[in-house]
Amino acid sequence: MIDLNLVKNIYREDRRSIARTISIVESDNLSATMFLKEIHKKVGHAYRIGITGPPGAGKSTITNQLTKYFRKQNQKVGIIAVDPTSPFTGGALLGDRVRMTDIGMDSGVFIRSMATRGSLGGLSKKAIDAADILDAAGFDIILLETVGVGQSELDIAQAADTTIVVLVPESGDSVQAMKAGLMEIADFFVMNKSDRPGSQQAYTALQTILMIKDHDQNSWLPNIIKTVASENKGIDEIATEIERHKNFMNQNNLFKLKREKQAKVRIKEIVEHKLKDELWSDTGENLLNSSLQKVVLGNLSPYHIAEEIIEEFKNRI
Amino acid sequence: MIDLNLVKNIYREDRRSIARTISIVESDNLSATMFLKEIHKKVGHAYRIGITGPPGAGKSTITNQLTKYFRKQNQKVGIIAVDPTSPFTGGALLGDRVRMTDIGMDSGVFIRSMATRGSLGGLSKKAIDAADILDAAGFDIILLETVGVGQSELDIAQAADTTIVVLVPESGDSVQAMKAGLMEIADFFVMNKSDRPGSQQAYTALQTILMIKDHDQNSWLPNIIKTVASENKGIDEIATEIERHKNFMNQNNLFKLKREKQAKVRIKEIVEHKLKDELWSDTGENLLNSSLQKVVLGNLSPYHIAEEIIEEFKNRI
Repeated sequence: MIDLNLVKNIYREDRRSIARTISIVESDNLSATMFLKEIHKKVGHAYRIGITGPPGAGKSTITNQLTKYFRKQNQKVGIIAVDPTSPFTGGALLGDRVRMTDIGMDSGVFIRSMATRGSLGGLSKKAIDAADILDAAGFDIILLETVGVGQSELDIAQAADTTIVVLVPESGDSVQAMKAGLMEIADFFVMNKSDRPGSQQAYTALQTILMIKDHDQNSWLPNIIKTVASENKGIDEIATEIERHKNFMNQNNLFKLKREKQAKVRIKEIVEHKLKDELWSDTGENLLNSSLQKVVLGNLSPYHIAEEIIEEFKNRI
Repeated sequence: MIDLNLVKNIYREDRRSIARTISIVESDNLSATMFLKEIHKKVGHAYRIGITGPPGAGKSTITNQLTKYFRKQNQKVGIIAVDPTSPFTGGALLGDRVRMTDIGMDSGVFIRSMATRGSLGGLSKKAIDAADILDAAGFDIILLETVGVGQSELDIAQAADTTIVVLVPESGDSVQAMKAGLMEIADFFVMNKSDRPGSQQAYTALQTILMIKDHDQNSWLPNIIKTVASENKGIDEIATEIERHKNFMNQNNLFKLKREKQAKVRIKEIVEHKLKDELWSDTGENLLNSSLQKVVLGNLSPYHIAEEIIEEFKNRI
């Protein structure tokens, strides 16, 4: 059974209830699915913005500044921040500190950092579930901030209405972004720290790459916005570009297609996650444990055991 | 059917056949499983060393230097390098260049970089499969080099007989390593670039953390080896420490336990990977595609559709 009071408290935007529900989703509690089904009817109001890019590009500073921008327009902002590299880049630590002094005390802002450790496979599912909770709670803008280094992180950044890829003018950064798959998901680019030497060359290089890419006359062309986020330069331009992208998508009826793609990725992950749970219930786990000896002693390959476990699973469900 | 000539060619260490078989494994070809089952009887000779740590710690330089060390002892060395952050850190690029001039021409060395893009979920499976192929081909040492930023990368580093965590004397690096889960998997640490200022403090800090951790009288205590890998300083000491760890594990009969744990992680991933394939065969994918509208129009939540798909799958298999 789900706690209907908790649902009610989410709708009236109670911060503790929101935090608790996100924790339920994170911990993979059985009631998480029921919660998410229950609140689904209230989901769909918020505009979701994905912010991604390499470590150190200034994503959290931009998230922070954009939040202040939207707050001035009286929009309530929810932030989901995911960064598996954060222990090493220090990004999240610094970002969190900036946030806490700057926007952390604002009751119109809700910030949630999501750990990646131990959440193998379910991370993008959980981040998007958390965004749904914030959406149902009535936040107007949801910022999904992730580092652009893995498929799971790209999935989160793509689960947005507008996806922004933040780069810095380091040599070859835009070429590397292409390799990492960031070019395909960007609705527009932000060239942050554009007061640095080499900024103009980096801008031109990125422009050249974008020009080479295939596109037809009527499709959306990703722009490049120059910013110095630490000095709040270019933040208004980002907001304007988000608005321009939103209008373009609406006018050309393109959100439907985008949401179909997003739903597909998401449903796939929910299904896989749930089947995994059933697979490794007591029976599956026990069979696995009792078969390990055979592999360690070299009698059977892991592939043989895997087939036995799959057979057992098929007979069981 | 599998190509038995290819299997034979692997056993006689034909480089092209090895490369081709790893590509089969990477591309998830149907015959991959059959290959891996077939060669399993030849697997188990190689000593596997996992090398992990944050981006920029010098993992590829250490891998390179260790390779030269083992080559002097006439050991054949296979290298599997995995780095999802490489497009941004530039690590793999530089590493590959060093490798190609230094050890790339040596017929006793086989190097394979594995891409992470598009290999969602199956990466550690594929990297370990590739290590099995090199093992069956007769390589004596297999170096598994991964960046320590995600669960999948940690899984690879742990699929070794000895796991080395490489750190640099940056402020707080060892604390961050703890957060990233690297402390738990290290058989010993390498403090690289230990000619840098602050090296002694970093060493002491790491030592303190290691002393605080629980351990009983008879268990293995991870050491810290200081290196300047770019000048080949400390590489002999790493090799000695690997040997010491190997002897300890053998004397205390601990490899059996370690291999059980590894087999468990690996079998789980094989099973999940295979079930996913069956799940998203034509039928599953078609049902998903035909249900997307309902989610986009807001009639049903992704969780409702997921349940329908799971039902269909259970009836089908």
